[in-house]
Amino acid sequence: MRIAITGAAGFVGQAVVRQLRQSRPDVDLLLADRAFTGPSAYPTLAGDLTDPAIVRALCSPETDILLHLAALPGGAAERDPQASRAINLDVPLALVEAMAGRRLILAGSIAVFGGTLPTQVDDTTPPAPASVYGAHKYMVEIAFADAVRRGAIQGMVLRLPGIVARPAAAGGFGSAFLSDIFHAAKAGTPYTIPVAPDATSWLLSARTCAANLVTAALGDATAQAAVTLPALQVRISDLIDSLARVGDVQRLTFDEDATTRRTFGSYPPLTTRCADDLGFQHDRSLTQLVETVLADL
Amino acid sequence: MRIAITGAAGFVGQAVVRQLRQSRPDVDLLLADRAFTGPSAYPTLAGDLTDPAIVRALCSPETDILLHLAALPGGAAERDPQASRAINLDVPLALVEAMAGRRLILAGSIAVFGGTLPTQVDDTTPPAPASVYGAHKYMVEIAFADAVRRGAIQGMVLRLPGIVARPAAAGGFGSAFLSDIFHAAKAGTPYTIPVAPDATSWLLSARTCAANLVTAALGDATAQAAVTLPALQVRISDLIDSLARVGDVQRLTFDEDATTRRTFGSYPPLTTRCADDLGFQHDRSLTQLVETVLADL
Repeated sequence: MRIAITGAAGFVGQAVVRQLRQSRPDVDLLLADRAFTGPSAYPTLAGDLTDPAIVRALCSPETDILLHLAALPGGAAERDPQASRAINLDVPLALVEAMAGRRLILAGSIAVFGGTLPTQVDDTTPPAPASVYGAHKYMVEIAFADAVRRGAIQGMVLRLPGIVARPAAAGGFGSAFLSDIFHAAKAGTPYTIPVAPDATSWLLSARTCAANLVTAALGDATAQAAVTLPALQVRISDLIDSLARVGDVQRLTFDEDATTRRTFGSYPPLTTRCADDLGFQHDRSLTQLVETVLADL
Repeated sequence: MRIAITGAAGFVGQAVVRQLRQSRPDVDLLLADRAFTGPSAYPTLAGDLTDPAIVRALCSPETDILLHLAALPGGAAERDPQASRAINLDVPLALVEAMAGRRLILAGSIAVFGGTLPTQVDDTTPPAPASVYGAHKYMVEIAFADAVRRGAIQGMVLRLPGIVARPAAAGGFGSAFLSDIFHAAKAGTPYTIPVAPDATSWLLSARTCAANLVTAALGDATAQAAVTLPALQVRISDLIDSLARVGDVQRLTFDEDATTRRTFGSYPPLTTRCADDLGFQHDRSLTQLVETVLADL
């Protein structure tokens, strides 16, 4: 069995590859990304997914399952809507087509919910994107649901919440501050958090996110509607309290930016019954999330 | 001022051109369609909108307003999802791009609501497409809304209900029976209606639909959310009673097809406050709708 993975050189992709290598050494992997640095335990395919030849190679008949993680991040998408269209819309649509009859797991995003969320989010909350990134992710959800309805594809779209911790100073993500807090606490360096202590976000560790992606790829469930992954609703002040036990938070300060607060720091309680029923996990507690993330940094 | 119109040779397009010619002889029109038969009072552009050269010609700097009516109909879209993607998704997205900063009116569809409607439909009813056609129309709504949010486009998407009467035996439309009833009643010919007498549909005459499209094109309102056009909720038995007064319905019979009933004959009451506030009209009564449609056949 072969699983092809796009965005395999990214931080979530690397976590997925690590877990599959440990738990399923019998599975062949084909790793795709724009570029790879250093040696790889698996065959790699370096190139741009907007190149049809790359899509053909990725979706050759030997590929049983495709896990599509590559994306143009939200900030970059907002600055260049045409590039977002190519990468965040046309590429997934091409993959749905090329993987017809096979299993496809697409990384979606909670960005489909837009800026102003209701007081509670659950599987019935209607998407209302307020960004180029969220709009393209939602358009892909609709196309995927229709392909499932027609019996043309198997698998699902998984909406990812804020994944921590991205590499330090990852460009293009308005939510990067959530990861930067971990880096600063680990290194004891100064960092100004762009939301107030009472801001709330949905967090999922890269390790647990990767475990969920592996579960989705290796399972046989197909979902017509996109599945919002479980996440912890975390208050920033609670996150800092947890980090203080294992890191150094003395040099963290606050300077709230209204847009960042609205977009990434005002998340209500989250219920994810569909994901729970499909066996997806969140980090069990904030303490455990902090330990996991710092161990993986 | 120049208005470019796609699908201009279609039955709604022709009604739009007729109304603009009468009411606004000062306006230049550029008419686009795959082909034109006979002479035209306005310049024509014959070709396929999937050809970028046609889009460039259509959206040249002289075009102030674009009214996009061309589409691959629902039945044909279901049989060829790739063709629907090209015509019903990629073309409108290209037009949003090419008309940046100008006014664009896109013909959407109530097909975005899918097969199973709630007991009442209004401007808050969430779309849930259940067809290739509806999925692509909904994806375009999302892209248009995002372009409006970014200030990249002006205008709106108008969701069209069942427009009567299409030309007899129009291919590719599962809703064609609604038009065929009018043709059969006018000619006194036999016709088997594929829903029961108590089926309900939303109807709008081509003439009133065209008037609404002209209102949208010439106005200056921009709507981020798609606007569902007003329509009459019509019971088929009531339609036949009205037709009996001015036509010959003796040879109409019924043989309900479950899919047609579910998809095109189970429409609940419709409220369209957004459209009403923007000045869009429905046919004032079923009697008036029948008179208008038969007069235009």
